[in-house]
Amino acid sequence: MRITIIGSGNVATHLAAAFKNAGHRIVQVYSRDAQNAALLAYHVKAEPINDLAQIDTETDLFVISIKDDAIGPVAEQLAKYDKLMVHTSGATHIFALQAYAEQVGVFYPLQTFSKTRELNFSEVPLCIEAATEAIAKQLTQLAQTISNHVYQADSAQRKILHLAAVFACNFPNYLYNVAQQLLAGHQLDFNLIRPLILETALKAQSSLPASVQTGPAIRRDEITMHDHLRLLENQADLQALYHLLSQGIIKMDIDLHGDK
Amino acid sequence: MRITIIGSGNVATHLAAAFKNAGHRIVQVYSRDAQNAALLAYHVKAEPINDLAQIDTETDLFVISIKDDAIGPVAEQLAKYDKLMVHTSGATHIFALQAYAEQVGVFYPLQTFSKTRELNFSEVPLCIEAATEAIAKQLTQLAQTISNHVYQADSAQRKILHLAAVFACNFPNYLYNVAQQLLAGHQLDFNLIRPLILETALKAQSSLPASVQTGPAIRRDEITMHDHLRLLENQADLQALYHLLSQGIIKMDIDLHGDK
Repeated sequence: MRITIIGSGNVATHLAAAFKNAGHRIVQVYSRDAQNAALLAYHVKAEPINDLAQIDTETDLFVISIKDDAIGPVAEQLAKYDKLMVHTSGATHIFALQAYAEQVGVFYPLQTFSKTRELNFSEVPLCIEAATEAIAKQLTQLAQTISNHVYQADSAQRKILHLAAVFACNFPNYLYNVAQQLLAGHQLDFNLIRPLILETALKAQSSLPASVQTGPAIRRDEITMHDHLRLLENQADLQALYHLLSQGIIKMDIDLHGDK
Repeated sequence: MRITIIGSGNVATHLAAAFKNAGHRIVQVYSRDAQNAALLAYHVKAEPINDLAQIDTETDLFVISIKDDAIGPVAEQLAKYDKLMVHTSGATHIFALQAYAEQVGVFYPLQTFSKTRELNFSEVPLCIEAATEAIAKQLTQLAQTISNHVYQADSAQRKILHLAAVFACNFPNYLYNVAQQLLAGHQLDFNLIRPLILETALKAQSSLPASVQTGPAIRRDEITMHDHLRLLENQADLQALYHLLSQGIIKMDIDLHGDK
């Protein structure tokens, strides 16, 4: 397919590379920032543009991979070309495109991307939604050229997926930061805790998290929890977080196994 | 070395196997539960016992790997044999042993263990503390026979390590469970989110977490955060958690980059 990438951020960068690697042609890369457009366009042998008036109409698909609140306005400008158009946002309803065009869909890669980190795209779950059955079929075929894990998810499901992703990725990463800061405050190396972080995520690959929960809360080890809260006594926000998460673990355990 | 394992839980099981694999002799495995003692003893070719009166005194080291509040009472009973004695607890002070004996230390493996999950012990960070320099040297040498990552950490540092481990392992695992429950409530497969969990942990292996934080909070995407809080409106505890974690991410960003 001939694909035009609208955006040059983390998702746009990885998607463009995956499409290119799968043999598709990236026609143009658009970014408001000419330098960002040029950088990504260079990597995928496309023409960089920083003005939507420069759109090459010889394309099959617009992939809009930009900030959520810019999706609608950009879709409005692209609608006149009458091409298939998708956005890549977890949090944005398909309506954001349907307000302006009929040939639309969503192409949501459920992964955390960094421009500087290589990633095997074939393992990235891709969630497809489309305005029509025919488009769904077309987008699914396209998705299967770059990923082995293609799912259908409507806008309501995608919203839940996005919320779940915040709990499974953004929040754990913040907790890693809390751990790193605690260690740094006592001249302890973050490397001490990195294997633990990885093993915890590896366990979740083959088990349900509730079945492999460890730590003082699930053991009802009140002495250790009290000790930990005392260590955090000058950080009221971390104390509150510790308390809330521990209560959540205890509640999860009671829901699963009854009160002990 | 001739090693006696006191305990048959997750840590005892993995440590005993690692010692055995490194060529040490496991003399006995003690557990209050005869069946648990027998099972682990069988795997490491040791004698199982379920009564501390059956201790074989032809040993060099007692490794006490049991519930935190049982460490002191068991150490008191073992003190009379006048052997080197260590516990493996992150949360327990070396005093719990020093109260009863002089030849004591701590041998804390900073990892989350499950009996049924194989693990490369050589990658597990081992934190050593000892009552004397000579014991520290001896325990360090022993540790190096089973792990490539041996550190020194006193009881105060170990307490911080243990607290950091709760934030880096127990709490993220609980958040994985929240994600899994959210998905299950909408007939969505947990597999959709597993690659994201793994990639988030992999990123933290080579980056500082604060530098790779993503998601609505760090983008100050108030619309999405408001949307997410609305999706959680029947789960006040998850709403509170979402709010607290998002505030934490924003504070982390301000501490790092100043207010935007």
